[in-house]
Amino acid sequence: GGHRFASSVALDGQHFAYRTRVCQEVKAEDAGQTVRLAGWLSAERKISKKASFYSLRDASGIIQLIVRRSGESDLEDPLTKMSRTPEESVVSVLGRVKLRPQSSKNANVSTGDVELEVEGFELLNAADELPFYPHDEHNLANEDLRAKYRYLDLRRPALANNIKMRSRVAHFVEVETPMLLQTSPEGAREYLVPARLSSAMTNAPSSTPSSSAIPAAPQFYALSQSPQQPKQLLVCSGGIEKYFQFARCFRDEDGRKDRQPEFTQVDLEMAFVSWSPSAIPNGEQHHSIPGEYADEQRWRIGGTEIRNVIENVICEVWQTALGAELPPNLGVMTYRMAMEKYGSDKPDLRMNSALPRSSTHIGQITLSDSKRVIDYLVVPREDQEMLKELMALREAGVQSYVVDGKMAWEEGLARELDLSGNVQATRSGLELPEGTLLIGCARDKYLTVRQGGSTSMGKIRLRLSELAEQKYGLAYPKYCFTWITEFPLFSKDEDKEFMAHGRWSSTHHPFTAPMLEDLPLLEQGRYEKVRGQHYDLVLNGMEIGGGSVRVHSAKLQEKIFRDVLQVGSVELVGPNFCYTNSLFTTTQLTETEIKSFDHLLKALKYGAPPHGGIALGFDRLMSIICDTKSIRDVIAFPKTAGGTDPVFRSPSGIPDETLRLYGLRSM
Amino acid sequence: GGHRFASSVALDGQHFAYRTRVCQEVKAEDAGQTVRLAGWLSAERKISKKASFYSLRDASGIIQLIVRRSGESDLEDPLTKMSRTPEESVVSVLGRVKLRPQSSKNANVSTGDVELEVEGFELLNAADELPFYPHDEHNLANEDLRAKYRYLDLRRPALANNIKMRSRVAHFVEVETPMLLQTSPEGAREYLVPARLSSAMTNAPSSTPSSSAIPAAPQFYALSQSPQQPKQLLVCSGGIEKYFQFARCFRDEDGRKDRQPEFTQVDLEMAFVSWSPSAIPNGEQHHSIPGEYADEQRWRIGGTEIRNVIENVICEVWQTALGAELPPNLGVMTYRMAMEKYGSDKPDLRMNSALPRSSTHIGQITLSDSKRVIDYLVVPREDQEMLKELMALREAGVQSYVVDGKMAWEEGLARELDLSGNVQATRSGLELPEGTLLIGCARDKYLTVRQGGSTSMGKIRLRLSELAEQKYGLAYPKYCFTWITEFPLFSKDEDKEFMAHGRWSSTHHPFTAPMLEDLPLLEQGRYEKVRGQHYDLVLNGMEIGGGSVRVHSAKLQEKIFRDVLQVGSVELVGPNFCYTNSLFTTTQLTETEIKSFDHLLKALKYGAPPHGGIALGFDRLMSIICDTKSIRDVIAFPKTAGGTDPVFRSPSGIPDETLRLYGLRSM
Repeated sequence: GGHRFASSVALDGQHFAYRTRVCQEVKAEDAGQTVRLAGWLSAERKISKKASFYSLRDASGIIQLIVRRSGESDLEDPLTKMSRTPEESVVSVLGRVKLRPQSSKNANVSTGDVELEVEGFELLNAADELPFYPHDEHNLANEDLRAKYRYLDLRRPALANNIKMRSRVAHFVEVETPMLLQTSPEGAREYLVPARLSSAMTNAPSSTPSSSAIPAAPQFYALSQSPQQPKQLLVCSGGIEKYFQFARCFRDEDGRKDRQPEFTQVDLEMAFVSWSPSAIPNGEQHHSIPGEYADEQRWRIGGTEIRNVIENVICEVWQTALGAELPPNLGVMTYRMAMEKYGSDKPDLRMNSALPRSSTHIGQITLSDSKRVIDYLVVPREDQEMLKELMALREAGVQSYVVDGKMAWEEGLARELDLSGNVQATRSGLELPEGTLLIGCARDKYLTVRQGGSTSMGKIRLRLSELAEQKYGLAYPKYCFTWITEFPLFSKDEDKEFMAHGRWSSTHHPFTAPMLEDLPLLEQGRYEKVRGQHYDLVLNGMEIGGGSVRVHSAKLQEKIFRDVLQVGSVELVGPNFCYTNSLFTTTQLTETEIKSFDHLLKALKYGAPPHGGIALGFDRLMSIICDTKSIRDVIAFPKTAGGTDPVFRSPSGIPDETLRLYGLRSM
Repeated sequence: GGHRFASSVALDGQHFAYRTRVCQEVKAEDAGQTVRLAGWLSAERKISKKASFYSLRDASGIIQLIVRRSGESDLEDPLTKMSRTPEESVVSVLGRVKLRPQSSKNANVSTGDVELEVEGFELLNAADELPFYPHDEHNLANEDLRAKYRYLDLRRPALANNIKMRSRVAHFVEVETPMLLQTSPEGAREYLVPARLSSAMTNAPSSTPSSSAIPAAPQFYALSQSPQQPKQLLVCSGGIEKYFQFARCFRDEDGRKDRQPEFTQVDLEMAFVSWSPSAIPNGEQHHSIPGEYADEQRWRIGGTEIRNVIENVICEVWQTALGAELPPNLGVMTYRMAMEKYGSDKPDLRMNSALPRSSTHIGQITLSDSKRVIDYLVVPREDQEMLKELMALREAGVQSYVVDGKMAWEEGLARELDLSGNVQATRSGLELPEGTLLIGCARDKYLTVRQGGSTSMGKIRLRLSELAEQKYGLAYPKYCFTWITEFPLFSKDEDKEFMAHGRWSSTHHPFTAPMLEDLPLLEQGRYEKVRGQHYDLVLNGMEIGGGSVRVHSAKLQEKIFRDVLQVGSVELVGPNFCYTNSLFTTTQLTETEIKSFDHLLKALKYGAPPHGGIALGFDRLMSIICDTKSIRDVIAFPKTAGGTDPVFRSPSGIPDETLRLYGLRSM
């Protein structure tokens, strides 16, 4: 026991062992075996001072636990620990399967012939007192309360079974989440749906509809930008442990190239994902750079279960749709490596083999102030002809330098870049033949101020590959995948700065878990160094999916909001954000806005399992599979770049009297 | 040749034989066999005066046709008929498979070893001149034109193959249709989505975005109420012949019991469905009434292919989800029989066995004015005790009568119902023992004025069964299915009357095909007698799905709009209607509103195959399968009856400055 990184965040279950079974699977023939289970703990049923019964429940079913006082010190004794654990907390137990005596067998449950003699116990997430206990089926809470806490009601097997019945795929349950969601405080990219005033109730379910005689404020739904919060609530409910959906999403992205107002994402979320690298070997790396980056090409975060599911899906899709055999492992690199070696958080690795003569990996020189580095690319003499064009980039702020024979290159570089006395070579000099071209540009060492996901040097690398393709007609390999992991958890995005008033904001979204090792850095306020358990899947330089291990501890989530994002005590975002949104608009949010996020924090408090998920952009994926220039070519009835529909001719005007139904009029 | 029902509508392909193969399947080993194919006809390539080549294309592929001048009269000669058929018309051909000479084999197409020697030819739907020819791949039309006529562009195999690649189910292609659609002139039940003014282009794709400096009229999308028009356009495109989708639909139905603002329907549409009963035997009938209704329990309309698909799906779902074996055939009855015998267009057939003592079938007496009938139910003496309660229905306008021994019952009934001298028995009297209760009420003979889909007598029958269940505790059989067919194509719905100004409106929607036999009635203006090729699937008294064979002839469609629905020359509805909507609000629609339906009429003109489809209510279906009281219990995060979301607390207000982005403000 004991947490490796003692912290005021008091994080439970940060690196638990993954369960070996689900409850339902434990049968009489397993008697004598040791198994590890995870799920929700019932109230204690005392047998004596020295032993108690509990029930452990997961989405598959329920099993009886028997716990006896051990000889261990009181603190480590499972019975002591369990009796201090609130009902409906999420726990992991290790134990030996035992046959029950004939007299106490229970024919009503499928595990009724056995019980688990508990030998080890780990608290994964302690539950607050619940507003009602869903398993008290004989004493159901009133309907309004169950509606408000739907994610707790979904723990009731009768209800969860209905939802599961809808599923059409084994293991993962296909669940449809609402598309009519709530507006978020910052809603620049969401589509609004006005509600008719006669039907627009106020928020409290018990209140009466607003009278049409009294002009009421217009009420709006917002169309779902992603099922992020519904899916987290679903998995927090415990009723569904593995969720998937082909989710239609809506985003009002004016003028973005090759985007559609409505698009489809393959969305999934799983309970009980790990918080640290699993023992599963990573397999060989396909684009590996040896030396100092060797370790950065390992999956060093949690969520391996998500990775495995997605890699299997991608391999199967490539096999089915293209008859193509992908490597068993799609490769991994850290954000740091991607930015340093390729200058992009979605590196196009196809050009590694396409640019055999020029250097394809960006190098770095750390400046002596330790806060900045120079990124550089080395271009051999024989490639320099095509690089004349590149030199035009000087005008775009790129500084370049030609190494001149014997002259110490660091000194030359420093003089050329006007950084006199500020250069300190980080490695033992480069052996550069005379006339070699060195293109370089300086940047901040920590890439927490993001500039569209790439560095200046990364953009040059892309341009270089275009030029090489034009000149040499290089054939790229068709599909180069890589996972990018260990993104900075927080960033000061230049685009977001005016929104966030110079504060830290979440690089992806505020529910992404920090890396286990970086919890102390979070404690110490060194936010620029905290890395997240986020993973993007990149194909041919395009992000085709992204996800993360989520924060499942309400305390940790509150700390991130309060101390890092500084959004007041519990100032939070609406359910309808997506990670490309800037989330925080004002220092002080209103009471309504605080409330708008209340449900997720509550759900974390009532026994939320460790969980994580991912979303793949289905349109982009299909566009790559079908090798089309635009995603419009894989959509039956797409919108134009301007958001209009040339077939059905939307959007269009409506009569003023229709607007009146919503309490609206034209400006 | 020659149409059985000569008509100014000049309907092509009304009762064509279903194809025996798709083009792709015809191979060298079929040489000598006779096959029937259907698809789109290419331009003619003349070999000589006496012979020509054509190509025939369907969604599977393409095959070469060779047509020789026959000895027949010029009018019946296939070559003459084909050379008069416009390119891209939809045709059916009968012919013998022949091996091509070695020299003219084409290795580029899978049918390149064979050609079809045409022996019979039928024009299914003649094409107007197309705005562009999608198969001229080397000379593609400009992008704006292809975008506007997306349903023609989808005939291009390169594009159609992209869409098919998205599919995850064999045979039927899963296609996602837009949810952001156009508003309809009558939009009482649709949700609006305002478009930001900066991105709201005017309807013409080539125009510039409206300047934000000049206040422009607010622009709106509407959320899809059903994918009706997109799916018809998709199948008319010919790129997809069998479509399906789990479609999220949105309907703003204030206060309707157990409805959700967003719901899911299992939606499908097929090309080349038949227009008349197929040779496929109907199987036994499970709730059959012998005698005069024997023939009304047969599937006498087209669309058998849809019926078969749905019955297979339903049987498989019952097997998979419930382990229940359904009869191989779900039973059929006409609308007339359902209304006359059960008083409802969604009869609950479970009570046929549950009400063994009372009569469960309503009888009719035609009044001598021939315009009205009396519906009656016979209640034996031993059931009359529980019927005292029913007598309270008198107050609700139900007239009842007790037969008194020897008295001629018709006379007695007439006196009791105050219809003196107006009763004419239609059959040889009922043998009613003394004291038998007869409940009766009069109604119009033709049930074209619909009252929520049931007659007064039908409501009494339902109440009777509730009472019987209370009194006798009768156990209903669990699942009673029936198809209802042959609905009146047009009706004067009392609810709709104020909208339609007393005119005829479509019972379901204006694209439903009339029955083949009733085309002359349509010609003669006897609209009350015209039956539609519509089918509802009813389970336990609830409509769980409905669909129809569609009108595929632009001329017939125009006639229905112009002569029957009287909506001006081409006054039509928006793409976003659903069949429960009342469609026509004003006598004269505006130019914009006429345009809003233009695309479907055009699509019918450019070579639309005969087609039909259906939609099943997935939420309702799941609710029955899971045996829940409300559909809310099969939805993960449902809305309340008032349309609010108790978890995410939508809808809610938004800041005024957000409204300004859409050119809107509060009233």
